[in-house]
Amino acid sequence: MEVLKGAAVTAAIKEQVQGMMEGLEGQPPKLAIVRVGERPDDLSYERGAMKRMEAFGLRAQSYAFPEEINGEDFKEAFAAINRDPDVTGILLLKPLPPQIPEREIEAIIDPAKDLDGISPVNMAKVFAGEADGFAPCTAEAVVEVLKAYGIPISGKRAVIVGRSLVVGRPLAMLLLKENATVTVCHTRTKNLEEECRRAEILVAAAGRAKMLGASHVGEQAVVIDVGINVDEDGKLCGDVDFASIDGRAAMATPVPGGVGAVTTAVLAKHLAQAAKRSRGL
Amino acid sequence: MEVLKGAAVTAAIKEQVQGMMEGLEGQPPKLAIVRVGERPDDLSYERGAMKRMEAFGLRAQSYAFPEEINGEDFKEAFAAINRDPDVTGILLLKPLPPQIPEREIEAIIDPAKDLDGISPVNMAKVFAGEADGFAPCTAEAVVEVLKAYGIPISGKRAVIVGRSLVVGRPLAMLLLKENATVTVCHTRTKNLEEECRRAEILVAAAGRAKMLGASHVGEQAVVIDVGINVDEDGKLCGDVDFASIDGRAAMATPVPGGVGAVTTAVLAKHLAQAAKRSRGL
Repeated sequence: MEVLKGAAVTAAIKEQVQGMMEGLEGQPPKLAIVRVGERPDDLSYERGAMKRMEAFGLRAQSYAFPEEINGEDFKEAFAAINRDPDVTGILLLKPLPPQIPEREIEAIIDPAKDLDGISPVNMAKVFAGEADGFAPCTAEAVVEVLKAYGIPISGKRAVIVGRSLVVGRPLAMLLLKENATVTVCHTRTKNLEEECRRAEILVAAAGRAKMLGASHVGEQAVVIDVGINVDEDGKLCGDVDFASIDGRAAMATPVPGGVGAVTTAVLAKHLAQAAKRSRGL
Repeated sequence: MEVLKGAAVTAAIKEQVQGMMEGLEGQPPKLAIVRVGERPDDLSYERGAMKRMEAFGLRAQSYAFPEEINGEDFKEAFAAINRDPDVTGILLLKPLPPQIPEREIEAIIDPAKDLDGISPVNMAKVFAGEADGFAPCTAEAVVEVLKAYGIPISGKRAVIVGRSLVVGRPLAMLLLKENATVTVCHTRTKNLEEECRRAEILVAAAGRAKMLGASHVGEQAVVIDVGINVDEDGKLCGDVDFASIDGRAAMATPVPGGVGAVTTAVLAKHLAQAAKRSRGL
């Protein structure tokens, strides 16, 4: 089984981003990472994103707010970041605590700065298959992995396990646009094993540690694992039991070191795109 | 094979709409049908919609513009209809001629009056599975037919042939919300027959006369035909060769007299919903 490492994909995206930055004058584009509270997942993702921006020659700044912040105060602060002409793009770490009206924030965010595609305008663009918006980075990272490794998508049977608004559903739209025949499975799917075994491209995006194993994987399938979970030993693992599918799948992404790393590279690419679009390029 | 006629579904929706109208004071809600040019399809749909609104005790008015209207003039006229407080909801017949920037019109339309779900806000709501927007009427009509006939959706394998923005993709979202396992097929799908035969619920929304026949239909499948085409003899027909699937499918909608009739009933329901929401009910 060929292991599809994220690093090679990330390196290719870095080159693209550097190409996009050529001729862009002034300060490098700046990413604002907006975080409420101190969830370990958020902190870890933030650290990864900060490092990636730096490595790509881009700026990043974290805007952190206390967990208990008043909803109105947060809205005001968020609106100010959103308006700041020095901020090229925004990543809002979610979920937000309950006192903050998430929908209102998503409606406030400038679609041109909405790098993770949470605004209705960008959601509609992903749904409509338009290329001038921003798709959620994780969903797009899956397509980047497939393309970077030259895996054909058109006409292939792609099965996505998970129907979330950040991965499953937008990815279904992105893969349809690439002409895959797309099936979306979820907790209510009957005979999940059979559905998954039919996949030529199987994407695990359910958020449950090692829930897919050899019995879910068809021979010669390409398996893309979006899950980031912690197993019983406290170690990072994906939604796929990686060891069990070796010898069955043709190719698979590991966790860690697979799609996760690519997600922040896509974020950087979106930041560069936002910078170019804001200058009318 | 049980024939799933639209009339029974329409009658049930009529009752719902009348229930919704009880206690609504003043003039009945008004539908504005906006048409550019005189395409026979549009005229026929317009006539059907006008009749349906009348039968349901709702108002409807057609706003027709010449095929050659200047894009700016149309935008202005459309904005005035959109602003008119007497207009409760709008149906814009599409496609528009090339000189009219369709995207701009979709961005202008008040999401609260956008009964056929063409605005980015409503598209995003359908994508996100939120119930307070408007889905495209034809996509929703499919779900109404299934529900009216008591056909279980949860956990079923639903296969949709066609990935259009008015039927295939929004319907995929609506069926996912009902917990179906959803597959979307299209022109680039390999082995369409095999994919379709696996369907417990098969939806034909490709827009090609009689393209699906007995070899596409699994035993005991429920077949919903969204197509409205004209066959070689000039007669109305669906995307399914209806005669050929008799004895194979468990149930199927005919064309005409199936989903088509339900679409205008859903439009009427959306009009009543728009009226209630505009009054804060």
